[in-house]
Amino acid sequence: MKHTGTGDAPATAAVLVIGDEILSGRTQDVNTRYIANYLAEIGVDLREARVVPDEEAEIVAAVNALRTRYTYLFTTGGIGPTHDDITADAVAKAFGVEIGEDSRAIALLRERFTEEELNPARRRMARIPSGAELVRNAASKAPGFWIGNVIVMAGVPSIMQSMMDTVGPQLKGGARVLVETIEAGAIPEGSYAMGLEDIARAHEAVSIGSYPKFTSRGFDNQIVLRSRDAARLGAAAKAVRALLAKLAAA
Amino acid sequence: MKHTGTGDAPATAAVLVIGDEILSGRTQDVNTRYIANYLAEIGVDLREARVVPDEEAEIVAAVNALRTRYTYLFTTGGIGPTHDDITADAVAKAFGVEIGEDSRAIALLRERFTEEELNPARRRMARIPSGAELVRNAASKAPGFWIGNVIVMAGVPSIMQSMMDTVGPQLKGGARVLVETIEAGAIPEGSYAMGLEDIARAHEAVSIGSYPKFTSRGFDNQIVLRSRDAARLGAAAKAVRALLAKLAAA
Repeated sequence: MKHTGTGDAPATAAVLVIGDEILSGRTQDVNTRYIANYLAEIGVDLREARVVPDEEAEIVAAVNALRTRYTYLFTTGGIGPTHDDITADAVAKAFGVEIGEDSRAIALLRERFTEEELNPARRRMARIPSGAELVRNAASKAPGFWIGNVIVMAGVPSIMQSMMDTVGPQLKGGARVLVETIEAGAIPEGSYAMGLEDIARAHEAVSIGSYPKFTSRGFDNQIVLRSRDAARLGAAAKAVRALLAKLAAA
Repeated sequence: MKHTGTGDAPATAAVLVIGDEILSGRTQDVNTRYIANYLAEIGVDLREARVVPDEEAEIVAAVNALRTRYTYLFTTGGIGPTHDDITADAVAKAFGVEIGEDSRAIALLRERFTEEELNPARRRMARIPSGAELVRNAASKAPGFWIGNVIVMAGVPSIMQSMMDTVGPQLKGGARVLVETIEAGAIPEGSYAMGLEDIARAHEAVSIGSYPKFTSRGFDNQIVLRSRDAARLGAAAKAVRALLAKLAAA
């Protein structure tokens, strides 16, 4: 069930955030960025993120669209004990496999709950699709799971992060993307855009982005260069620094 | 080019965030939540959000998938003066229309820039697909645009928010979703989940979600009820409060 990111094509990934609370504006999603940074560290390219509501058909469609397209799919949300937690059943449906109470998951829950506490709602957290491996977490006992190339995690950030730590060492990443951030400061984007485009064209192995920010004191812009090739990254960064120095002196 | 959300089916919407900086983990997206809250206020249901990289084929595919499915599609990012700003061209391609320098947009840019400052890079911000209406913003002069049911906005939050204020009054919303948030506090989800499921089944016009949070003092859970029907919302909320009172007394 593991995929390799070595060789020519880097491993890719998508994030699927499952939860009405994100789409209603109640909750600020912070899991996507956490996963993005985690994957960047191990050389997996996050290529897409989606947010869908707590509706089975929507989850099934998104899981199938994303798992067939990327090396890994990470989902967050919808694996708790309440009626709106339908991710495990939806993922089982997406894979066309059975789902039932998993004895390994029940054993984990028993480490935390007494027999009396382990009511039908809490046992719901032990519903795991057939063929999945459990993903333990240190923060709570309720496990996520890993089926095919899909890693199903909790929505609560601290629990999700613990699950990423569990699966992280098993992910097949690759060469890390190296990043160089250059402060353009108050030089407006419109002033360096043409020079930057020339540099981007001349350094095709380097991805160059320009990110404006407005502060109370005016522009505060950053140029971010990204590449898996250190030498090429360095050459492009040198060209960008020379461009900005010329503009600052003008 | 406007759609009505009145009648039986509420207006729906998707958000498409365009930008490598979100997928690399550099930047925390805050625009989706802002738009979600804005739309909730006017009774438009945000049904999906996606993040795609600064790549034309990805943007075109996502724009077409989302604009055909929802009443409105709001995009953020990729309309600045630098080479990585390719949203306008991608949206034109998605609609199969021409794109060129828009004289109305040039006129807006001239309010801010001198002829000398209005270089080819800044003129790039006046590239608008044929048939689109401009979306002005108070924060900068560079416009977004509205074509068909797609509203194209900046990625910088302050500029995006100004654009939402421009288009907001023209959006056809409907009855607002009413929200009741009930503090379950330290009562664990697993203790109220079964009772909550019964309530959810008995109140089908009300969407009920349970949102656990872990603090240094333990659980701090919230139950959120949402409905367009005030009486039904009130009845469901009363049932939830009674459930929690019973559990707290037990």
